[in-house]
Amino acid sequence: MTEKIVIVGGVAAGPKAACRVKRLMPQAEVTLIDQDSLISYGGCGIPYYISGDVADESALRSTSFHVLRDQYYFEKYKGVKVRILTQALSIDRAKKQLLIKDLGSGAEETLDYDKLVLATGSQPYVLPIPGAELDGVFTIANLHKAIEIKDRIAKGKVGKAVVIGGGAIGIEMAEALTDLWGVETSLIEFKDQLLPGVIEWSLSAMMCKHLRDSNVSIYLGESASEIVGEGGRVTAVRTPQRVLDADLVIMATGVRAQSEIARAAGLRVSDMGGIVVNRRMQTSDPSIYAAGDCVKIPNLITGKYFYAPFGSLANKEGRVVGDNLAGLPSTFDGAVGSFIMKAFDVCIGATGLSLEMARAEGFDADFSLTAPADRAHFYPTQEIICCVMIFDRRTRKVLGVQAFGAMNDNVSARINAAAAFLSKGATIDDFTNLEMAYAPPFSAAVDTVNAAAYVADNLCDNRLRQITMEEFYSWMDDFSTQPDWISLDVRHEQQALPFVEKFGADRWISMPDDRIRERYEELPKDKTLIIFCNAGSRSYEIQVFLDSAGVTNNRVLCGGFNVIKRIGAPWLP
Amino acid sequence: MTEKIVIVGGVAAGPKAACRVKRLMPQAEVTLIDQDSLISYGGCGIPYYISGDVADESALRSTSFHVLRDQYYFEKYKGVKVRILTQALSIDRAKKQLLIKDLGSGAEETLDYDKLVLATGSQPYVLPIPGAELDGVFTIANLHKAIEIKDRIAKGKVGKAVVIGGGAIGIEMAEALTDLWGVETSLIEFKDQLLPGVIEWSLSAMMCKHLRDSNVSIYLGESASEIVGEGGRVTAVRTPQRVLDADLVIMATGVRAQSEIARAAGLRVSDMGGIVVNRRMQTSDPSIYAAGDCVKIPNLITGKYFYAPFGSLANKEGRVVGDNLAGLPSTFDGAVGSFIMKAFDVCIGATGLSLEMARAEGFDADFSLTAPADRAHFYPTQEIICCVMIFDRRTRKVLGVQAFGAMNDNVSARINAAAAFLSKGATIDDFTNLEMAYAPPFSAAVDTVNAAAYVADNLCDNRLRQITMEEFYSWMDDFSTQPDWISLDVRHEQQALPFVEKFGADRWISMPDDRIRERYEELPKDKTLIIFCNAGSRSYEIQVFLDSAGVTNNRVLCGGFNVIKRIGAPWLP
Repeated sequence: MTEKIVIVGGVAAGPKAACRVKRLMPQAEVTLIDQDSLISYGGCGIPYYISGDVADESALRSTSFHVLRDQYYFEKYKGVKVRILTQALSIDRAKKQLLIKDLGSGAEETLDYDKLVLATGSQPYVLPIPGAELDGVFTIANLHKAIEIKDRIAKGKVGKAVVIGGGAIGIEMAEALTDLWGVETSLIEFKDQLLPGVIEWSLSAMMCKHLRDSNVSIYLGESASEIVGEGGRVTAVRTPQRVLDADLVIMATGVRAQSEIARAAGLRVSDMGGIVVNRRMQTSDPSIYAAGDCVKIPNLITGKYFYAPFGSLANKEGRVVGDNLAGLPSTFDGAVGSFIMKAFDVCIGATGLSLEMARAEGFDADFSLTAPADRAHFYPTQEIICCVMIFDRRTRKVLGVQAFGAMNDNVSARINAAAAFLSKGATIDDFTNLEMAYAPPFSAAVDTVNAAAYVADNLCDNRLRQITMEEFYSWMDDFSTQPDWISLDVRHEQQALPFVEKFGADRWISMPDDRIRERYEELPKDKTLIIFCNAGSRSYEIQVFLDSAGVTNNRVLCGGFNVIKRIGAPWLP
Repeated sequence: MTEKIVIVGGVAAGPKAACRVKRLMPQAEVTLIDQDSLISYGGCGIPYYISGDVADESALRSTSFHVLRDQYYFEKYKGVKVRILTQALSIDRAKKQLLIKDLGSGAEETLDYDKLVLATGSQPYVLPIPGAELDGVFTIANLHKAIEIKDRIAKGKVGKAVVIGGGAIGIEMAEALTDLWGVETSLIEFKDQLLPGVIEWSLSAMMCKHLRDSNVSIYLGESASEIVGEGGRVTAVRTPQRVLDADLVIMATGVRAQSEIARAAGLRVSDMGGIVVNRRMQTSDPSIYAAGDCVKIPNLITGKYFYAPFGSLANKEGRVVGDNLAGLPSTFDGAVGSFIMKAFDVCIGATGLSLEMARAEGFDADFSLTAPADRAHFYPTQEIICCVMIFDRRTRKVLGVQAFGAMNDNVSARINAAAAFLSKGATIDDFTNLEMAYAPPFSAAVDTVNAAAYVADNLCDNRLRQITMEEFYSWMDDFSTQPDWISLDVRHEQQALPFVEKFGADRWISMPDDRIRERYEELPKDKTLIIFCNAGSRSYEIQVFLDSAGVTNNRVLCGGFNVIKRIGAPWLP
């Protein structure tokens, strides 16, 4: 008997499951339905379509050999039957039937299934504020919205835009609008940093500076309280602090799993909306699978389920569904949560838990911050890469790695290695010896992630005592917050002197590192010395020496001036 | 009592161990000796110094903050005593004394030690052929040789050069000579491919084509039988096939561990010369440690000891030595053997075992070859990356990953993730779900390594039957070797027709993939169909369909035309 497989959702996980099962069981009858007319597209490419990097939306839904992934394609090349503009209304699990509706004719119909797959995706969260329904307010929900946004810009209807939300999509959209179209763009984020909860403060501050240097206006700690309109069209966004004119508003305030049909059918669904699946991507009904942005998956670090709506995971989950539909015992064991993004000339990436997540999970979490060169420091194209490693002090387990660097694959090269390692429970000691392929054009002999682990190792064993960059900035903003601190600048004198002149000798001491062994007795005994160099490594050497000489009132500023240069500050000399 | 630590060898592992132990035990008395006058340099940077990318040799032995790592540096900044031009002659283990010789004065002296570290490095292998001693014949043994080579080129004394050895250093040197200096350079390799035993045939053939396109003459399967000279200076290199004029000859035929002093002292040394150490980098004498190019280390895939003379590992090993000297229980558990190299505009990298190594170790090894885009195929800067995954059919364990791509960090981003995973014993199934950070400017939703694992999975389960690229090339060179093969080209007709015209309809059939479901009955039943597309994935779909239709006389050419384009061939239409 021919197996009847019905798949709801045609963007990523759905088509992947459909094609995989057809390859494994060519005789299966596979039907894919989607309420949209456009299917199987690279949703993560939308910002690049809007920016113009990708000229035509059809590129987002074509194969690498330039064939459009439409109904014809799925039928002819894949043997999968596709019904677009078709909504799934409800599931009758006892009868194994799906009730569907043709959105064109309005006709309803039931489809029999042996196996059903839910790949119903996610829906953007819309802020419940006045004006959210105005013309010109968009979420990045689907390709139609993207086409409409680009159309408006191309027709010259958008002079000013406001992006609400400082997460990855918000930042990508801000770049898309500013970079190629020259739209005057503001971004507002209600937390006090970009990528809040996800990226450590220093790296996020570097991203913020780079966006501001690239002509994006950023307002942190501000929430959109109202979207203002005239004649039904948006004209501005109001925050408690200001009014920002806007012809276009992008709401990029997160997504929620779309799982109503699963919940209504009595399948197990988590409180926040993600469908609960096992490692074969089976729901609580063994005949029904689910994958993609509508499910929760195991977090390989915490062991708990989490929501990770990423296109790359959707594809992997979809393949596992396809395998299991055909009787192959594949599993999707979970993820650590990797992300990466471009913004103008820089990129930022992260894998695993952030410091906030780790502490919320009860880990005794701390982090190292390093700023070494991304390749041999003598190699002409080297650039500084700033790296954060989050670890558990009790178990020495590494919980997360984050990096900020120039726009190339140097961040990928570290984040991907870290993700592979994290998924296998790697410790700081694993990371000190992690084998990063070395040649001067690609890395330093001690690679960024090794260096990050070295510092983590020293912190974890209390050999290194640090202050964080955030603490340092607070002090520099207001010396009275730490009246007994004084900076011990161990860089060359010509680098340190402008700081001594600006902040005074009672806040800033210049003593180059090769002189400290002779001169350390001149240092003040009643102050806490904040040792300051370019990257932090020399400061650590000085800490070790001072400690051994009995001068223990000192702490290291990890990351040093390399990090400060990238964050910027009004107080810089 | 002050601990006396003596370290022999001042390039990478030695200085690292010295500095680390001084940070952990500032009171220790650490003496580093080296027979050379130049120490602590990035030996892997020598080709870039010779090419001119690195202007001055002092950059190779400076810190990232531009301080020269000389005796003064180690004394002032690190508290390490350094004696250059000092040779270690022998070890008296009973008395814990090292006999040394001042190479300037010739005076001998004994140094007492509590702990001794051997970081004696490696020595280039010199081919035992006539003329090897001629002026103008160099190995890349140390910085002095590099300075002399560059000096000769800069003074216009080198018009033609021959590099003997097609390994990484040979290729890097060929680039250095050709690229910036325009030296007419030939490279000879006695095996029939570049990077023999290390890199799969197809990827190696791509490297060969790129070098030839960049004006390096390559002679494979040729050995240097004699170096010819006149008046004591080299004038040519003779092979059984030809005589190549040369003002300069670089011998890059591998290195050997330098361990005579260890062997003479009765320490355990392997047959091939590597000093045997445990995971704390301790030799068979617990007071003597060893690290760097003079030791053998565990291979994390085979479990056996292997020789991995890489600067990055030397640093890691040196740090573990430093830890253990200070009583910290660190271990260096081994390596998988990662390597990466640049050659003009391309790069190649590998981690783990090659196919040859895997088979020699008794694995039931096979490999997948894929050629997808390195980022979203719609993203403007995407390039093809060719990837080989070697796996064990019995256990599904991945044994190695190799990649060839454009010169950026796209290969690093895959090789490093694979190395981390291999060191943890990852299987094909782990690799299918390996989480590569995804955004269109960085990767495809299904990343290169995931795609490689998909193909490996299908091969391993015998769902995919392939012929290798090497087999295909043999057939194209001589159809009579496989008289019943016929190519089934499923690309667009305009892509296939030049091939049909050139090879005839009895060798090449054009049938686009969207027509096969209707037209497959036209296919010849008495031939083996070699299914041919751009990358191999469409061919696999066709194989699945044909099999299901009962047409099982078919095999897939994995990698497809994307790979062939990069290898080149005289028979291409």
